[in-house]
Amino acid sequence: MTVVALAGGVGGARLAEGLQAALPAGDLVVVVNTADDTERHGLLVCPDHDTVLYTLAGIADPAQGWGIAGETFAVMERLAVLGEETWFRLGDRDMATHIARTARLRAGARLTEVSLEIQRALGVPTRILPMADSPVRTRVLSDDGWLDFQDYFVRLRQAPDVRAVSFDGADTAEPTPEVLLALEAASMVVICPSNPIVSIGPILAVRPLRDALRAARARGVPVAAVSPIVGGKALKGPADRMLASLGHEVSAVGVARLYAGLVDVFVLDAVDADLAGKVASLGMRALVTDTIMGDAAARARVARETLAALDGG
Amino acid sequence: MTVVALAGGVGGARLAEGLQAALPAGDLVVVVNTADDTERHGLLVCPDHDTVLYTLAGIADPAQGWGIAGETFAVMERLAVLGEETWFRLGDRDMATHIARTARLRAGARLTEVSLEIQRALGVPTRILPMADSPVRTRVLSDDGWLDFQDYFVRLRQAPDVRAVSFDGADTAEPTPEVLLALEAASMVVICPSNPIVSIGPILAVRPLRDALRAARARGVPVAAVSPIVGGKALKGPADRMLASLGHEVSAVGVARLYAGLVDVFVLDAVDADLAGKVASLGMRALVTDTIMGDAAARARVARETLAALDGG
Repeated sequence: MTVVALAGGVGGARLAEGLQAALPAGDLVVVVNTADDTERHGLLVCPDHDTVLYTLAGIADPAQGWGIAGETFAVMERLAVLGEETWFRLGDRDMATHIARTARLRAGARLTEVSLEIQRALGVPTRILPMADSPVRTRVLSDDGWLDFQDYFVRLRQAPDVRAVSFDGADTAEPTPEVLLALEAASMVVICPSNPIVSIGPILAVRPLRDALRAARARGVPVAAVSPIVGGKALKGPADRMLASLGHEVSAVGVARLYAGLVDVFVLDAVDADLAGKVASLGMRALVTDTIMGDAAARARVARETLAALDGG
Repeated sequence: MTVVALAGGVGGARLAEGLQAALPAGDLVVVVNTADDTERHGLLVCPDHDTVLYTLAGIADPAQGWGIAGETFAVMERLAVLGEETWFRLGDRDMATHIARTARLRAGARLTEVSLEIQRALGVPTRILPMADSPVRTRVLSDDGWLDFQDYFVRLRQAPDVRAVSFDGADTAEPTPEVLLALEAASMVVICPSNPIVSIGPILAVRPLRDALRAARARGVPVAAVSPIVGGKALKGPADRMLASLGHEVSAVGVARLYAGLVDVFVLDAVDADLAGKVASLGMRALVTDTIMGDAAARARVARETLAALDGG
């Protein structure tokens, strides 16, 4: 059985960890957002892929949810001495990932091939597939103009209000054979509790990928989405403020509306139980449960409940 | 006053350190061999430049003479996990140099420009000029065929006998404006006690650079060379075995013969005092002194004595 999850960074990685624990090894395929990817010091950094990678490899920093546990910063400190920009802070172990990835890409490999190699080297049973091999890059429109995503996200700490988003390269991005094969093989699809605008949004903006997801659903493959908004707030990151500044309702219902027509089961937190009726009115079955995934047990439980709801559809 | 030194790695860096100490800040220009340069993990590594750089910046590992003091290896250990070759072991702080250099080269800068930027960032008053901006790469012929230099030097630990050397790219390498200007401005030139075959050899194999050196000498600019062979042995590295397998005499005289016609003053160690007559017969003045440069004081002394011998020419 193949289960395909769509994921961004930390929130997506947590549910992906639960799904990996709940499923036989190798059954999970995670399609990750690449529109946060950025070149730093000439190296390709893939924040969402690497957050999912380190989480599924069991080496993620448990406190912050991204980066590698026990990380050191010797390279970054020297890069500062050499006059390089250092607001995007990369650890030494993490840097090795970017170095190896960039070297192999420059030698001619596709991003998907390189990503799979790195996952195997770390012993990860799950395949984590970049949504596209060609660059797609998110920019956000602030009141001061367009910003590269990491400028907004890291350098400016998500302070600016986001008035619009664009996913440069999404229009022309080809779906990878790996992503298309995974969606053809899928028996279930789970949209992780990632930011619907800038994490899941870019994945769905790759038209042939969205078409393949729709085609799977048309064949009867059920799709679930887990709300990243709980009690009107984002569990992590700027999703709540971004929904507001873009004119969406800041609630699980606001998220559900964005997925209407794509999703069969919508998972919302127990604190939002009163919203279940509104979700149902959008044509989705509502699954109400505790969606806070603080530890591995909670992650596996949310995963199992979500899979069970899809299976019971 | 500009003094130009030609240098390879550790031995050259030691005399360069002495010259920097002996001269007013900014008067020393070191032209370094680039034919040892190598691409590792997609990053350009310049061993000779960086050994001179770290030595002149006062941050070199005092025990091994290359690399940065107090170095750590977190990146390399992760690169090993990711399946990268690790026989060329790069420290974390050193890696930052290669990352910054490669990023700026890919952004379009010349190697000389990037090198000067890095030197300024480390507060080095001396300018360390790559002998060429375009790649020149040493290969050595072993009994098992041609080897890339670092394959021979690091991976095989200089075990193979060297039957021939080639400097790929030297024929077509353009001299840089910076090297030509330095040689035009030079009032003295010092060939450091580096391997005459694979450290000084490639520099002199860049024909226009060699011509500029000859032109300076024809204008009356005196040139000294310091022997890297003391008592019939190389102070460091494979220079002695390389001289032997290439059919040269393994002695200070053997080195002096390689520089005949290029050099006015040849500095040889007190243990080789009996060779001074043979050196003189090659048309050079012999300076006999203690050339072992174990500490900063000894380096400065050898530098001062060499400069004095040139000045007194």
